[in-house]
Amino acid sequence: MKLGELYCSRCSARLPFRYQDMKCDCGGTLLVAYDLEQVAKTLTKESLQLRYSSMWRYRELLPVRDPANMISLGEGWTPLLRMPNWENKLPLKQLWIKREEQNPTGSFKSRGFAVAVSLLKQAGATKAAVPSNGNAAGALAAYAGRAGIQAFVFIPMDCPSLIVDECPLYGATTVLVDGFIHDAAAIIESGRVEQGWVNLGTLKEPGRVEGKKTMGLELAEQLGWTFPDVIIYPTGGGSGIIGMWKSFLELKALGFIDCDMPRFVCVQEEGCQPIVDGVKKASSKTAAAENAQHLSSVGKIIPNPTGMRVPNPPDLELLLSIVEQSGGTAIAVSKEQIAAATLSLGADGISSSPEGAATWAAMLALCDSGWLRPSDRVVLFNTSHAMKYAKLGTSAAIPIIKTYDEFMVYRNL
Amino acid sequence: MKLGELYCSRCSARLPFRYQDMKCDCGGTLLVAYDLEQVAKTLTKESLQLRYSSMWRYRELLPVRDPANMISLGEGWTPLLRMPNWENKLPLKQLWIKREEQNPTGSFKSRGFAVAVSLLKQAGATKAAVPSNGNAAGALAAYAGRAGIQAFVFIPMDCPSLIVDECPLYGATTVLVDGFIHDAAAIIESGRVEQGWVNLGTLKEPGRVEGKKTMGLELAEQLGWTFPDVIIYPTGGGSGIIGMWKSFLELKALGFIDCDMPRFVCVQEEGCQPIVDGVKKASSKTAAAENAQHLSSVGKIIPNPTGMRVPNPPDLELLLSIVEQSGGTAIAVSKEQIAAATLSLGADGISSSPEGAATWAAMLALCDSGWLRPSDRVVLFNTSHAMKYAKLGTSAAIPIIKTYDEFMVYRNL
Repeated sequence: MKLGELYCSRCSARLPFRYQDMKCDCGGTLLVAYDLEQVAKTLTKESLQLRYSSMWRYRELLPVRDPANMISLGEGWTPLLRMPNWENKLPLKQLWIKREEQNPTGSFKSRGFAVAVSLLKQAGATKAAVPSNGNAAGALAAYAGRAGIQAFVFIPMDCPSLIVDECPLYGATTVLVDGFIHDAAAIIESGRVEQGWVNLGTLKEPGRVEGKKTMGLELAEQLGWTFPDVIIYPTGGGSGIIGMWKSFLELKALGFIDCDMPRFVCVQEEGCQPIVDGVKKASSKTAAAENAQHLSSVGKIIPNPTGMRVPNPPDLELLLSIVEQSGGTAIAVSKEQIAAATLSLGADGISSSPEGAATWAAMLALCDSGWLRPSDRVVLFNTSHAMKYAKLGTSAAIPIIKTYDEFMVYRNL
Repeated sequence: MKLGELYCSRCSARLPFRYQDMKCDCGGTLLVAYDLEQVAKTLTKESLQLRYSSMWRYRELLPVRDPANMISLGEGWTPLLRMPNWENKLPLKQLWIKREEQNPTGSFKSRGFAVAVSLLKQAGATKAAVPSNGNAAGALAAYAGRAGIQAFVFIPMDCPSLIVDECPLYGATTVLVDGFIHDAAAIIESGRVEQGWVNLGTLKEPGRVEGKKTMGLELAEQLGWTFPDVIIYPTGGGSGIIGMWKSFLELKALGFIDCDMPRFVCVQEEGCQPIVDGVKKASSKTAAAENAQHLSSVGKIIPNPTGMRVPNPPDLELLLSIVEQSGGTAIAVSKEQIAAATLSLGADGISSSPEGAATWAAMLALCDSGWLRPSDRVVLFNTSHAMKYAKLGTSAAIPIIKTYDEFMVYRNL
């Protein structure tokens, strides 16, 4: 099968496939088109039952053709975990968490970079750069290392230091930027031609959206070829929202599923909430965020959800259109809500990134406001490990003992 | 199907099933027995093809019967990653890494505690304690949280602080011990009756070995129902070695596989090497460790492989017997070798724990010494994420910039 063309998500123009520069002349984002009649010949519900549990099981819907170019570290097919303890407490009958932290680089970013780096390999590119609030940098570093491609990562200096530290471990040239992610992006654009970098920033190339798309494909398959009613997703640049939306359109076009699209909920951090503001403006309604219950801060560790800190998403219009078309919403949560959610998830055995915990906080707020209905089947995305955001020194309060008697002294304090 | 009996791995005595106290009167370790004729009625290669990708796919070979008692966080069926870049460089035709860090708690310990905590749930127990060099503590904390069981974890104070920190996040009572893991174990034994703790230490109960067994079942299935020639495994208490050995015996008894057992290689840290010493003594040969090439230290970060620091494995005799029967060996590696291995794996996109990196170092040494043959199909186990062992402050050397010009200054230094 030949490589898909590209199509414009705004004006529907068709263009030949390319692996850089995803802006259409009309300003819309270009996405990968597939010959779905061709896809349907080999990608069937039955054929999938016998395929390996990796995101490459959907290879007909990914833009890499030669297996030698598929750079894989064991990504995808992450667990979709049911939350029975909470279904008994909340007015929600069915609640799941997609455990994206179980990807090879400890975050959902593995998926996008597996495909993006595979496309670079396919094209013979040798250098790639990315501006990142954290997990994207680690993912590029890892997949580029595997592919023998030189990685350059530019990370705002307020990002979690463990995420920064893992990049040189994977062999990437690692630089901290005194600024935001768009400042990091500007540095890459300044040097792109001179350095021979392919810019793998959000929506700058077609692979990351295609990789993220597999979250939607998996979700549908893991739910027995249905869609959930609601997807609550921490949103920065939004390639996951765009990817999952695209995956559902493809599944409908392939005839795999014939039901309503899920309502997409974009979760952001209070104070950095362009999608929330955009939804508010579009609908002129009170956004759900204003009904959100402010939980008191119970955690000592309040990490920053840097992954959601994208003040200028590359295609805000497309995100707003997906939220609107799906009957979804956008909601901002506070650091205190995130800290409380981290402990709730922790108590149920789940190590959540602040962005993942933000989806929990959003779910609680949307239950309170009545936006979520008890009959809704809801999926949250835990995008990364708590650990990656850890600050050392928090264990200062943990007692040190030598004997059982000392334990008893501590217990009785 | 009724719960399996127990059998003694030393004298073959049969006993009724129990979930505490795994010592036979003869001193041997008690393991779970199954009615394999009964198992074979539903567990077949064909039935497995359609089962969910979790370690519970092998439920007939696990000692939990009621699905309501199966405490699952999405463990098992981790990727078995081929290492083509290194197959081209090393005298080894087939090299794989089992990526155990992709388990829910970021380490292989998820497997054992999923089963151990499920057994507690099945028995109605309410409190559990474990002595741990790190990842076992986090796993007990997570699974106990999920099950609504109170967890008490006792961790030697030289263990990685991030691993310590995650235990209270999961709601566990967390205590640092000024001593070794056997000192932590002694504290638990002192308080066990008074506190009502079930001790989930290595080989103290039947669940952890059964959970670890699934690594062997998966390995065989992922390799198309064959065994690899060699398994290189970082060994502390050794329940993984015992579990995998048991799984292979069960697969042979079930008629799933009819080939030679893999050679088991136990990897330990120089200076804490009871298995290496035991093998040396038994065979009166020079251990492979002495031929190990000492690599220079190239990493700034040299974390401690605390998971292998078990001076007194609970059943050393059984471990030595498995190594001998399988034609395997044991090898000690240095911290410098581990640091170099961490960077080699990192450059190929893999974040390895020091214990996982130790298996890489052992593999290199065994290639050098000729113990590994080019035709051997070799599997290494990466038991946890590098991240969990991270020390902060290592990013001090990472440059901070504002502009592309500043990047160029840094590049030209």
